[in-house]
Order: sequence, then C-alpha cells, then structure tokens
Amino acid sequence: MNKSDQSSKKNFHDETAAFDGDTSNLNVSDGDILIKNGRIITVDPQNRIIDNGAVLIKSDIIIKIGSTAEMAGLNAACVIDAKSGIVMPGLVNTHTHLPMSLFRGFADDIPLITWLNDYIFKLEEKYIQPETVQCGTLLSCAEMLLSGTTTCCDGYFHEESVAEAVKKSGMRAVLGQGVIDFPAPGVVEPSLNVENAANYARRFKNRYPKITSSIFCHSPYTCSKETLISAKQAARDIGVLFQIHVAETKAEQEQMRQQYQTTAVKYLDDCGILDQNTLLVHTVWVTDEDIEIIRQRGSSISHNPESNMKLGSGIAPVLDFIRAGIPTGLGTDGSASNNNLDLFTEMDLAAKLHKIHRYDVGVLDVLSVVRMATIEGAKAIGLGDITGSIEIGKKADLIILDTHKPHLVPMYNPISHLVYSATGADVKDVIIDGKIVLNERKITTLDLDSILIKATEFAGHLIM
Amino acid sequence: MNKSDQSSKKNFHDETAAFDGDTSNLNVSDGDILIKNGRIITVDPQNRIIDNGAVLIKSDIIIKIGSTAEMAGLNAACVIDAKSGIVMPGLVNTHTHLPMSLFRGFADDIPLITWLNDYIFKLEEKYIQPETVQCGTLLSCAEMLLSGTTTCCDGYFHEESVAEAVKKSGMRAVLGQGVIDFPAPGVVEPSLNVENAANYARRFKNRYPKITSSIFCHSPYTCSKETLISAKQAARDIGVLFQIHVAETKAEQEQMRQQYQTTAVKYLDDCGILDQNTLLVHTVWVTDEDIEIIRQRGSSISHNPESNMKLGSGIAPVLDFIRAGIPTGLGTDGSASNNNLDLFTEMDLAAKLHKIHRYDVGVLDVLSVVRMATIEGAKAIGLGDITGSIEIGKKADLIILDTHKPHLVPMYNPISHLVYSATGADVKDVIIDGKIVLNERKITTLDLDSILIKATEFAGHLIM
Repeated sequence: MNKSDQSSKKNFHDETAAFDGDTSNLNVSDGDILIKNGRIITVDPQNRIIDNGAVLIKSDIIIKIGSTAEMAGLNAACVIDAKSGIVMPGLVNTHTHLPMSLFRGFADDIPLITWLNDYIFKLEEKYIQPETVQCGTLLSCAEMLLSGTTTCCDGYFHEESVAEAVKKSGMRAVLGQGVIDFPAPGVVEPSLNVENAANYARRFKNRYPKITSSIFCHSPYTCSKETLISAKQAARDIGVLFQIHVAETKAEQEQMRQQYQTTAVKYLDDCGILDQNTLLVHTVWVTDEDIEIIRQRGSSISHNPESNMKLGSGIAPVLDFIRAGIPTGLGTDGSASNNNLDLFTEMDLAAKLHKIHRYDVGVLDVLSVVRMATIEGAKAIGLGDITGSIEIGKKADLIILDTHKPHLVPMYNPISHLVYSATGADVKDVIIDGKIVLNERKITTLDLDSILIKATEFAGHLIM
Repeated sequence: MNKSDQSSKKNFHDETAAFDGDTSNLNVSDGDILIKNGRIITVDPQNRIIDNGAVLIKSDIIIKIGSTAEMAGLNAACVIDAKSGIVMPGLVNTHTHLPMSLFRGFADDIPLITWLNDYIFKLEEKYIQPETVQCGTLLSCAEMLLSGTTTCCDGYFHEESVAEAVKKSGMRAVLGQGVIDFPAPGVVEPSLNVENAANYARRFKNRYPKITSSIFCHSPYTCSKETLISAKQAARDIGVLFQIHVAETKAEQEQMRQQYQTTAVKYLDDCGILDQNTLLVHTVWVTDEDIEIIRQRGSSISHNPESNMKLGSGIAPVLDFIRAGIPTGLGTDGSASNNNLDLFTEMDLAAKLHKIHRYDVGVLDVLSVVRMATIEGAKAIGLGDITGSIEIGKKADLIILDTHKPHLVPMYNPISHLVYSATGADVKDVIIDGKIVLNERKITTLDLDSILIKATEFAGHLIM
C-alpha cells in the first residue's frame, strides 16, 4: 500500500469527486434503490469519501455515485435515507467455518491441537450432518447480516448443505468443501475425499448466482502430499479457489521442519499448490523467503487476528504481506475460535495488535484495515472485480451504519470510527446484489426466531 | 485468584445455591423491583450462577437472590422479565477521562507524547471549559449506560463540572480533579493546582450520594516530587482515592532511570505515594520488584489494554498482578485513545492479549476477566463493599443482556459469551442504585438527542 493510501482526514474527502461512467443519460426509470444523505466511504482506488452522498442501484449493479444534491432528481422505486450515517461496501470475511457457530463457547482456552482432537473432531463426528450444517450456517448468516458482512469465504464439510443455507440468506460466498486424510463428516472413506470435494466443486461452481464453489484442504499436517496435489489439481481443472490453513502454529512449523526439512509455505510450493487461485489462511509462522514465494506465485492471504490471539497461535507479519503487495483480507475463522463473526471488532483488534507487536502506533493505519475488510478481502478470494468497493458497474453489496449514537459522535474521521469505535450492532441496513437483506436491523431473508430455536435445541442434545 | 475461581462450565453452576441472609421474613411490600427469568451471574466470592434466577431490590439495595420459582410469590412494584437473558453486576470502568469523548478520532495513530503535546494539550487549552466538560461527560455517560457500565473512575480538569454531569446521568463514580505542573484547563497558575484539587475533593467528597471525589496526578513526568507529595497528602487528609498514570511507556521508564536512577513505581514509593488508597493506572513497564512493592503497599491497578495497544505502549504484566493478589480492574482510558468506552470489547481484548503475549491459551481465563470488569475493578477504586457483584446487602447496580441474538445462541457457558461474543450493544436494561437508568435501550435520565446535537456542534467549531 503506497503513501497515497494512508489515512488522512484531509486529503481523501472529496465532495465533488468526478466518478467514472458518464451517467448524464440516466433516464426514465433511473434505478431501483437510491440511498441518499450518506457519508459514502467508497474504498475505491482513490479511497474517496463523499460527505453528503448518494448511490443509485439498478437491479444488482451500482450505476451512479455522487452528491445527494446532484442526484436529487433521479427516480428510484425505493429511496433509503441514510440520515448522515455511513454508507460503505459490505464487509468481506475471508475465512469462516459457518456451521461451527453451533459449538461457540463449548470449549475455550484450550491449545489448538487438544481443542481439535479432544473436542471439535469428536463433536463433528457425532453431530455434524446435513441438517445440523444447515442449522449452524443459517445461524452464522444471520449473525453476519446483522454485523454488516455481505460476502464470506467458507471451508467445511457437507458444503452442499452450507451452500443451500447461504443461498437462503441472500449472501454472496465462496464455499469450499473440506478435505482431510481421516474420516470426516460426510466422507467415511478418506481416500474418496478429493473426489467428493471435486464433485461438489463441479456441481456448485455455477449452480447459484452469488455462490462460487471451492476446495479447502484442512492443512499440510492433516493432508498427505498426494492429497494436496490431487486436490489442487482438481481445483485448477474446475477453475475454483483452493484454500488451506498454513503455518498457523509454531508446533506446525516445527513439525514441517522435522518431517520435510523445510517451512510449511515452501513445502506447499514444492507441491505446486501456490498460484493466483490459492488462499493461504493464518500464515503466522512464515519467513521472509516464504513471503517472497507467496508474492511471486500471486497467492493471497486471510489474516485471522482474533483467532490467532485467542488460540495463542502467534502474530502474522501482515505489514510485510501488505508491503509485498500480497492481497490480504481479514477473516474471523469459525466462531468457535473467535468467538463471533463481527468484522468490525476484528478490524479494531487487527489495527491494535500490530501496533503493540511493533511498538509503533504508526503501523497498520485505519484505512489499510478498512481496505483489508473490504476490497483487499474481495481480491484475496477472487471477487475483487465484482464486490468490496462502491464503484460504478460493481455489484450493489453495501451497508448503512446508524451513526446517531454516543460512541460515534462527533465524527472527525469516519474511517477511524469504523475501525476503533463501531461494532456490527451499528449496521442498520444491508444490501446484497441489489436486494435489501437487512432493513432497520430486521433480516428480510431468514426467519431469525426459528433459527435461534433450532440452534438452542441442537445444544440441548449435545453430550460429550 | 485461586483455583476455585477458575472458569469451569460445570462446577460453578448452582441452581439451588443457598444465599446468605435470612429472607424468610420478607413480607408485605416485599421490594421495589423484581428481576425474574434471568441467568444470574453473581460474581460473588463463589462465582455462583443461577440458571433461572431472580433478584429482588428494595430501594437501592439487593435484598434477595434465588430461583425464579422460589421467588414467584414476592411482591414488587416493578417486575422485569429478563427472558432468559443474562443478569450481572454493572460493569466498573476503573479509568476514564470522560470529557475527552469530544476529541475521539480527531488524531489517531500518533505516539503518546506527540499526541499529548501537539494535539490534546492544545485542544484542551483552547476548548475545555466547564460547559464543554459537561457536554463531553454527558456524551460519555450516555455511551457507558448504553454499554452496561454503572460505575466509573475518572480523572480530568474542571472535575466539578464532570460531577454535575455524572450526577444527572444517575451513574456511580469516583471523580478525580487533575493535577499537572503546567497551565491546564481551569487552573492557570500551576502552583495552585494541588490546592484547587484539594478544595474540589473536600467539597465533593459527600456532596452527592453516588459520587466520591478523588485527586488525580497526571504522571511522575508531568508532576514534580513536591506536587506528588503534597497532592497525596491532601488526598490522605481528605480520605479520598489518589490516582496516577505510571510506567505507561518505555520512554517514561527510561526517563525515570536517567533522572532518578530508579523505576517509576519505586520513585513513587520513595515519595510515599503508594498505599491502600492509591490507584496506579497502566503500570505497563514494571519489574518484579515493583510488583512486590505494589503488593506490600496494598495499592491497586487499572489495566487499560486497548489504550496500551492503540498507543503502542506495551503489555502490562496482568497475570503477575493477579497472582500477587493486587486488586486489578479494567479501564478503557479516555475514548480518544481507545476509541470507545465499551467494557465488553475491552474484556475480549484483554483475554486475548495476554494469551498471545504468553503464547498460552490457558492464561487469563474468562472468569478472571469478568471479575476484573466487575468486582475486582470495584475493589481497585475502593467500592468493593458496595458494588461490583450481585450479593444481598449490596447496592443494586446491575445490568440485563438480551441474549436472544445469533451471536449469543446457543449458550454453553455464559461467562465465555460475556467475554468473547457480547458487546455493549447487547445490554438491554441498566439499574443503578435501585433506579432503572436504561430501559429497553432507552436512557431514562438523559436527553440523548440534545447531547448528540451539542457534541456535534462542539466538533463543528473545532479548529486547530
């Protein structure tokens, strides 16, 4: 991120910004939704902010952006008054395990390997089926909509059931079927895991307009070399994103050194895994050489600071990723290791974590953090051309924050408030693909009460 | 904190807990407020939780705690149905600079000394008067009530105006007049600073029932030895809490070594500052010997993790404070260096920060964190006997959380959810001193709209 991207209260406000796209010929039925009286945080390449701005949406596309005054005469079936609140791109969560919200708070403050082996894998074996996957996914989607996330990138099992639930919610998503070299939910025979994932990825690649399929290998320490290579080959053949947890803990890094005399990243590179369609998740224990390899291959990174802190895993060298130009997004991880899916608190923590890590208040400025949670995250999961910013021609994925609240008043710098002061609860409305999916904090696509009842019932039956 | 204080889902649930106080003779007009159907997190010495519990309040006091069933026959003028939500002690914020919410987000990501000298001190000189202090304090009180804080400990200038505003809000508070060896708001002549603070402390010690006065010396590097000694002597004579920022940054610690050949804590101890009525704030750069001195003197600590991270100051050795038995509370610091007053997100960050610092998921368990934000904080500011826990005979300072939300369902362990999943926006009702001050998220004591309008007007006039 270069100098011009740095946060500065003064130089990126631009009420009279000339936006691309000649819209002088807008006419007749101008658009479907007009959002007016908003502080528009575009997160476009110039990071423009329009202080009293408006956005016009037609069908699923943003067709005009400007001042409320100059767009006063335009027609729209639905007019939303943002009441001086913030209008910004919907947030992009680059790493989730959606069904795991059913296990949130069941077992905290336990080392990652113990947590996985003694709790999560056992719970999953016993309780994860298509129905429970749908239940947990709907719960997570409700939470994400209520906290301003419009796009997520998931990896789990029974991913076809995740896809059906996400479709109901109206969210945009990249959904990866999990691959692991031991029996897992939905795949009793590990040798069929890659084939199963490839079948899913093929069937769901274009099944639903807002959902893209993906293949998610759990990690270099739970998948053999053969599994990794064949799973990546399948993802390449089908043309979908390949995701993998890598270099999450020091123990993993040591295991890789002992077993393969190399780093986790170099091992994956030796397997031919790294290319422009690979998302590396966590990437905490990496060397400068690893970072250079990631950069050269064009792979992306999902940074999960809350999970990494909660599990005591370590602090990823995010400043180096950004400096190298590697697309780096924010992720919450599953809500059982966070324990929420709120990307606003994730932004706050990311901004603070790297300052304390380097003892330098100047690093990871607020604008870089907002970009990680929006456009950089979208780029990281391959959706940078269609979502993650408010620009003409992009999909209408945006959120409106109610800023008439004591923790957001006065507002000298909206970017600062987004990172350091706001939480997901400040999100008032959410629009995805031109559809209003959260209206004055009411989810329009899901029956929230029935989701909460089912999730409570699930927990009532849980026995370990 | 001993073993029995550790968080464990199983051993501290106790639906049939026998609470102290024979209440069999409760009769006639039993109480004023009955809260029923709540998950009562008492934070009492046994950390008892009552899963379907009730609390009876008479006047300003908690007079009965038990199961909803056994308390069904009691009379109360007002019955609040907690609807299975969490009922817990109101949170205690052990370090604030309430009026500074007016400056939130004005200047971020700048080193502490530059931030103070080039921004904050200049802004204060120009804009801080009794009226603006009231405006900022009301704004902060509104934010605290909306996020479940019932008690705070403040240090600022024009503290009599802070007190008037806090009184309006209905909050409980310890309010310290600031002392600093250069011209400050309200005190043009630094030599009169201690006298001014002492006068305030004397006048406001018992002026209002829920407010206690205090004297707040800014730091060992902005107050001379003489100032420190006379200010502490005044606090001792009047019988009020003495507060001071200490060992916040590495630069401060180095300055103390160069100037006095000792640590900041030992320097203060040499001045006779440390006793049971002294609150040390930040306390980041301290040695094992410093900690032992603090323990021996019986002083308390305010831990401000978000501020320390945001300003890149460092990580306080909180585990060592707790192990030494030093009363250690949580504080947000002023909202201009946080940037909010939400103690729920502060708890989340505290729990995670120390895990990553030690690379150990087992440290600073969730129950210890909730205790820091409630009873330990109350003890740290000298109010442990009257607030910070739900116990018979204590002041009725408590909050109710709406947990019928996707990020709080299911709930295996409510303590985990309080720390890792909830935010202040989940607080539904707040009761302070037996009065309902937040009712279904409406503040009953303040006119929120007029506060927000005045704060916005203030910011509109700000020129630097």
